[in-house]
Amino acid sequence: MAEWFWVDGAQTSLVSADDRGLALADGIFETMRLEHGVLCLGNYHQYRLTEGLQRLAFRDPDGIAKQALEAVSSWALSLAADYEGSSLRLSITRGSGPRGYAPSASAPPRFIGRLSTGLPALQLPACAGVADIAWPTQPALSGLKLIARTEQVLAAQQLSLSGYDELLMANQRGAIVSTTSGNLFFRRGSQLVTPDLFEAGIAGTRRRYIIECLAKACEMSVSVTDVFPEMLSEFEEAFFCNSIIGIRSLANVVYGDRKATYDSVAAAEKLRPAIHGMNH
Amino acid sequence: MAEWFWVDGAQTSLVSADDRGLALADGIFETMRLEHGVLCLGNYHQYRLTEGLQRLAFRDPDGIAKQALEAVSSWALSLAADYEGSSLRLSITRGSGPRGYAPSASAPPRFIGRLSTGLPALQLPACAGVADIAWPTQPALSGLKLIARTEQVLAAQQLSLSGYDELLMANQRGAIVSTTSGNLFFRRGSQLVTPDLFEAGIAGTRRRYIIECLAKACEMSVSVTDVFPEMLSEFEEAFFCNSIIGIRSLANVVYGDRKATYDSVAAAEKLRPAIHGMNH
Repeated sequence: MAEWFWVDGAQTSLVSADDRGLALADGIFETMRLEHGVLCLGNYHQYRLTEGLQRLAFRDPDGIAKQALEAVSSWALSLAADYEGSSLRLSITRGSGPRGYAPSASAPPRFIGRLSTGLPALQLPACAGVADIAWPTQPALSGLKLIARTEQVLAAQQLSLSGYDELLMANQRGAIVSTTSGNLFFRRGSQLVTPDLFEAGIAGTRRRYIIECLAKACEMSVSVTDVFPEMLSEFEEAFFCNSIIGIRSLANVVYGDRKATYDSVAAAEKLRPAIHGMNH
Repeated sequence: MAEWFWVDGAQTSLVSADDRGLALADGIFETMRLEHGVLCLGNYHQYRLTEGLQRLAFRDPDGIAKQALEAVSSWALSLAADYEGSSLRLSITRGSGPRGYAPSASAPPRFIGRLSTGLPALQLPACAGVADIAWPTQPALSGLKLIARTEQVLAAQQLSLSGYDELLMANQRGAIVSTTSGNLFFRRGSQLVTPDLFEAGIAGTRRRYIIECLAKACEMSVSVTDVFPEMLSEFEEAFFCNSIIGIRSLANVVYGDRKATYDSVAAAEKLRPAIHGMNH
């Protein structure tokens, strides 16, 4: 695997220590899949970046998101065109700032890119447990991919010490929100169910793509609702998705002293071929 | 004002772009007051650092907190001894890491220092409003000074555009937790009341010092409880505190279409002389 960094247009692996992303998590990011150097579902990433910048009250969210994404994509294409798959992370922080919480009125945002060649291979259905840490409740920022990701870090750390392939994360009311790094879908007949993200969670690009386009194209409906652990056994199939792995099925979920088992991977297989964009 | 940066023992203002503090807010920090280069209430800062490292599951939290604080203090003393007052920020991040949420098993933590000479002058009692954004609910991480500070950034941004001197921030249930950058106390007779931080908020060093030592020394009691906006008018006095400004009184708080006014600054004046440590 090769890896490169890019900061504000220059290929460098150093960032100013007064960056507000580093100091206060004042920023957002996207992790994006490239195929032969070309961004998959770039419009979905741009949409979420714009929404994040808006909710963090950056000036000109549209312009900044567009400018950052174009610049980092063209840098990535120059390096990754010869690789079948790679991943590109773009962070947009509030740039340099003085001491204290209030942003500088004049500092430009900072764009940070990280390009890594290679993508994970398709993996077998995952055996999942449940993370000890729950998502925080914050409707005002829910859905965004903020730099502030403490809960997922703690869950990923627990995962790496557990015997599981994945962990599900609940919200403060105990409803299941996500895995450590993906959005969840459950299937009953031709109906998909995905957790409501009103209070907590990241509104993933692939989740949105399934809800808005793919499910219908695959003759399924989607409902967005609370999914509590005791409902896990009611479904025939479960899978999670993110921009890098695409879709991975769950073989089972162990929660408390119970276990939900899923024998079907039918919806996952139907959705997978198009999960990174139908026309590429 | 002069300012210097320090990263892992070297005076430099550049940080590696793969730092997990920058990527995922994976770390904690302290903002500390120096008088003639010497740390005020260093043991309180060390205690909170240790607790933060513990709850983020760093290895050897005690050792890391002690080592980082000693190193950054001795660097700061070498530069700030001739200044009457200065402020020192110490961040401890999970160091460099690969892509993804799971920390590297082997990367050492990174220590980042920022030293700024000068301290704010004592300010008149503040006229306060209430921030639009509320604290998130997260009992598992409440009290810590995580790098993840999105809500306070948004509140500070609102403050800078408002006509107020300060804004109070509530939790998801509407109970008042803090100002944008300090802990709150209210007084009725000889009883101080400070918001409960079970769900949200930063457990400030000065708050702890007042609760554990200063209130008693000044013949006051402290109770920790929920404070809802409708209770604000029941108090005779209100003030907030943090490690840099010490104590600042509130003149009034405007909430909804009501206003609570405080004429007394008696407790604030009693506590202020010792707020940065009684023996220095």
